[in-house]
Amino acid sequence: NGEHNIEISSRISTYYNQRFLKPGEEERDKNRFRLRDAQLIIEGRIRDDWEYEVQVDFADIGSNNTGEIDAENPGLMDAFVTYKGLEAFNIKLGYSKLPYSRSSITPFPYSTYWQRAQIVRGDFFSRRDVGVTLYKDFWQKRVNAFAGVYTGLGESSLSGDNDASGNPEFVARVDVSYPAPMKNREIDYVHSSIPLFSLGLNGRYTNKNLPDGEAFPDGAAGEYGLKIVDGKKYTYGMDFTFQYKGFSGQFEIHQINAQPQNENDPLFLGLTPAQTEGRVLAGGYFSQLNYFVKDYNTIVSVRYEQLDLNDLNAGDSKRMSAAIAYQIDGFDAMVKLQYFNNLNDQESLDPLDWNQQIRLGLQFNL
Amino acid sequence: NGEHNIEISSRISTYYNQRFLKPGEEERDKNRFRLRDAQLIIEGRIRDDWEYEVQVDFADIGSNNTGEIDAENPGLMDAFVTYKGLEAFNIKLGYSKLPYSRSSITPFPYSTYWQRAQIVRGDFFSRRDVGVTLYKDFWQKRVNAFAGVYTGLGESSLSGDNDASGNPEFVARVDVSYPAPMKNREIDYVHSSIPLFSLGLNGRYTNKNLPDGEAFPDGAAGEYGLKIVDGKKYTYGMDFTFQYKGFSGQFEIHQINAQPQNENDPLFLGLTPAQTEGRVLAGGYFSQLNYFVKDYNTIVSVRYEQLDLNDLNAGDSKRMSAAIAYQIDGFDAMVKLQYFNNLNDQESLDPLDWNQQIRLGLQFNL
Amino acid sequence: NGEHNIEISSRISTYYNQRFLKPGEEERDKNRFRLRDAQLIIEGRIRDDWEYEVQVDFADIGSNNTGEIDAENPGLMDAFVTYKGLEAFNIKLGYSKLPYSRSSITPFPYSTYWQRAQIVRGDFFSRRDVGVTLYKDFWQKRVNAFAGVYTGLGESSLSGDNDASGNPEFVARVDVSYPAPMKNREIDYVHSSIPLFSLGLNGRYTNKNLPDGEAFPDGAAGEYGLKIVDGKKYTYGMDFTFQYKGFSGQFEIHQINAQPQNENDPLFLGLTPAQTEGRVLAGGYFSQLNYFVKDYNTIVSVRYEQLDLNDLNAGDSKRMSAAIAYQIDGFDAMVKLQYFNNLNDQESLDPLDWNQQIRLGLQFNL
Repeated sequence: NGEHNIEISSRISTYYNQRFLKPGEEERDKNRFRLRDAQLIIEGRIRDDWEYEVQVDFADIGSNNTGEIDAENPGLMDAFVTYKGLEAFNIKLGYSKLPYSRSSITPFPYSTYWQRAQIVRGDFFSRRDVGVTLYKDFWQKRVNAFAGVYTGLGESSLSGDNDASGNPEFVARVDVSYPAPMKNREIDYVHSSIPLFSLGLNGRYTNKNLPDGEAFPDGAAGEYGLKIVDGKKYTYGMDFTFQYKGFSGQFEIHQINAQPQNENDPLFLGLTPAQTEGRVLAGGYFSQLNYFVKDYNTIVSVRYEQLDLNDLNAGDSKRMSAAIAYQIDGFDAMVKLQYFNNLNDQESLDPLDWNQQIRLGLQFNL
Repeated sequence: NGEHNIEISSRISTYYNQRFLKPGEEERDKNRFRLRDAQLIIEGRIRDDWEYEVQVDFADIGSNNTGEIDAENPGLMDAFVTYKGLEAFNIKLGYSKLPYSRSSITPFPYSTYWQRAQIVRGDFFSRRDVGVTLYKDFWQKRVNAFAGVYTGLGESSLSGDNDASGNPEFVARVDVSYPAPMKNREIDYVHSSIPLFSLGLNGRYTNKNLPDGEAFPDGAAGEYGLKIVDGKKYTYGMDFTFQYKGFSGQFEIHQINAQPQNENDPLFLGLTPAQTEGRVLAGGYFSQLNYFVKDYNTIVSVRYEQLDLNDLNAGDSKRMSAAIAYQIDGFDAMVKLQYFNNLNDQESLDPLDWNQQIRLGLQFNL
Repeated sequence: NGEHNIEISSRISTYYNQRFLKPGEEERDKNRFRLRDAQLIIEGRIRDDWEYEVQVDFADIGSNNTGEIDAENPGLMDAFVTYKGLEAFNIKLGYSKLPYSRSSITPFPYSTYWQRAQIVRGDFFSRRDVGVTLYKDFWQKRVNAFAGVYTGLGESSLSGDNDASGNPEFVARVDVSYPAPMKNREIDYVHSSIPLFSLGLNGRYTNKNLPDGEAFPDGAAGEYGLKIVDGKKYTYGMDFTFQYKGFSGQFEIHQINAQPQNENDPLFLGLTPAQTEGRVLAGGYFSQLNYFVKDYNTIVSVRYEQLDLNDLNAGDSKRMSAAIAYQIDGFDAMVKLQYFNNLNDQESLDPLDWNQQIRLGLQFNL
């Protein structure tokens, strides 16, 4: 009826991936076809007050993994209700993306790439959680402000329990666009006739001191043990983007300040409190430049990333990647090709067995 | 077309939960935001003869737990077909709720609470199973009678196999309403002008003598090892409900008579056959009183529960809880607050680490 | 709108199964009600060029098994996009059925049986995979030709990775119908007035030499360790079908030629290279005859199967089965009864504990 509108859509994407290993390496399990997305999206609206969305990816659910949830591709992607009936602010309740990092918030189907930059992919900080977000826009939508509180285990919060500390995570973000409001898109597909800029600042904090003998749920700390820390974790970041005449760019930088409660925490890498001063920094940045060649329905992008998993360790990692997307039918049907070059890795913390990687596939929004 | 009608709906609910632990306890993993429901419901009808329903909860499926199925919140909630073309009775085939316990059958979105009473939550007896149900109403719908046969592993039957005994479970129920038929609802939201009563009786039986060396599937016996028994299990219960001028009440009592085949069954608590006489009783009751304050779109409820997990053990447990729900948009959008008080627990069998619990959240039917 | 059509349908089926065990056997876990299917099917078309389908079975997803994917009943059944805009051939991308074996490709809701023949059920060769298929028809649709390349782990490819060999599987098929094109259906429900025949040939090849110390993912090799082989695997098959005046028949034969790279591969059964000549053959055939008794809305079928799991072992297995289906509402609502007789099993490789099996249930397409 007129009061309640519901819309169902779908998304399918699949690619072939080829990795070029370092000499002597033999683990070729990343040379494969992959079904990345087989999503069902249910969006609804009741009058002008209430909006809701449930988004599920059967490619991930059907693969039936072993209890852990893949932060970049979780089976349940969204399940929230938003109430817009208040003057003071809007309220979002349920499981959805955290208001942290512009890249994380930007919808992925509009990207030239098959993967977000490493630092915003869900291994450094969680991208989704269960909780409450308040948000509001000002200055004719040029300013957006968000604040929320969440379980704090990120994607693992879906399993229903917190860790034994029982503490939440707090997240806040504000962004300002000028001279006009900007949509969260990587590509300037309208070829903006005036230059548009947007700057974002965000921070988050959690204090998850575990009681003696307790541990975090499997997988909750992520690939690098940084997503949650047995102690305090501060995370802050800045992002900047522009769009002009088909050109667009993104720059984003994040730092984690982790303060584990125990001197023998693995994050301290075996160093003494005198050496560590009780805290570990991790972080990095990426910058990306895109151009939309309208006449040829083609987007080209290039990205550079730097990451340091732990400042107590001397190394860091650097990656360069390029991507090209050809639009068969706008953003609804694209062929995407991505090239990755692993320039340098942080060997003692995260040694990689490959140098280069190519990914070619098709992406559909239905 | 006119012959085949299909309807798709959705349900989302989320809450914050806070537990107040007993002195000395430190496990605070229940202090958290939780996504309780993210459901998709597909209901259909072909002519007047056939009805079907598939109900899925992506909140549970997406959490991807480790092979066990949560009886109160299974990922698949309903998948059945009903044939109403026969004179003699209706037939329901597939996976759905068992015709046992009024509270279990009553749809939950109409409740003031976030949880059913402990005894009907799926830990004492299963609430869903795969099988066949025959049912019929009499006396202008005042009497409903049900009888069915099922795999007998309850929610675990979804995995496709029976236990090694290969035996089914039999379930039957009859309820009588007076002076008029009653819907299965906890709350008198129509403020009935005459007093309505309904009385139900139900029983179930299974004989699952396992062959030597065999065991039940993981999780099938439930939290207290009572859902299935290596031997005979009789379960019987009575329920009563009334509605009048916005007031409504529920009373429900159940008893399990378990007769394990082996003298050293854990249910015997190490006692000798002379002491146990070869059988174990477990059971309890709850009573609940509700009032719907129509002018304020508000429901208030209070519930008292008593449980004895094993009559060979001296103790029992007692709980008191209260709940209040505010209707933003009828039962389709409610804020619900629930308070739980653990008055007494059966310490040697099921010691609890908490005294009180508060749960506050939002529930949506879309 | 007119350019984009989307259609949602559903499928539910459930049965009771009874096994008659061999004397002395006690494992009766196959005596049970089972929810076989609770499917959601989303099909779409954009203009005449693009088609897509996502098919999910919640009966399998909800049972939440332990990381392995059941090849005959996977949770995700289809997630693909087809492009038909090219002159030269059509392209199918994503996860779907492989173009190998007529029986495997034939939609199952039109079968009299509850199970496909053993050799085409997904234990000898995979039935679904992620990859690319090119196909085209000739001679006014009388000839269909298919060729594709896939990850090669079959249903396990859904988990996203390949094995450590990193090698793909290649599959090709061609079938010829005469005198007219034939749909992929087991039953002649139109009572063809002229005899229709179709002959198919198909082959597949993969070379999955694992590096030292690596293993295939759990479950990927299937029940008999034949689905993937640590070495080369050639598979080829022939199938034939006819339809005439309500009668129809299927014959299908397959052989696996496995050439494990290691002399001590379990497939060699401990024999020496001199004895095995470095290769193992496995295979078998089935033939099935059906008649559609139109006046009684009834289908009867009989099937005979022979299987040899390993030619280095002396035995083989033989099975006979019969089935009858009564159409309440065409193929959309059928009662199906299937009888299985285990005539002979290959005792040292795959000893069975049962002689006969009966399966009775209801199948719905909605």
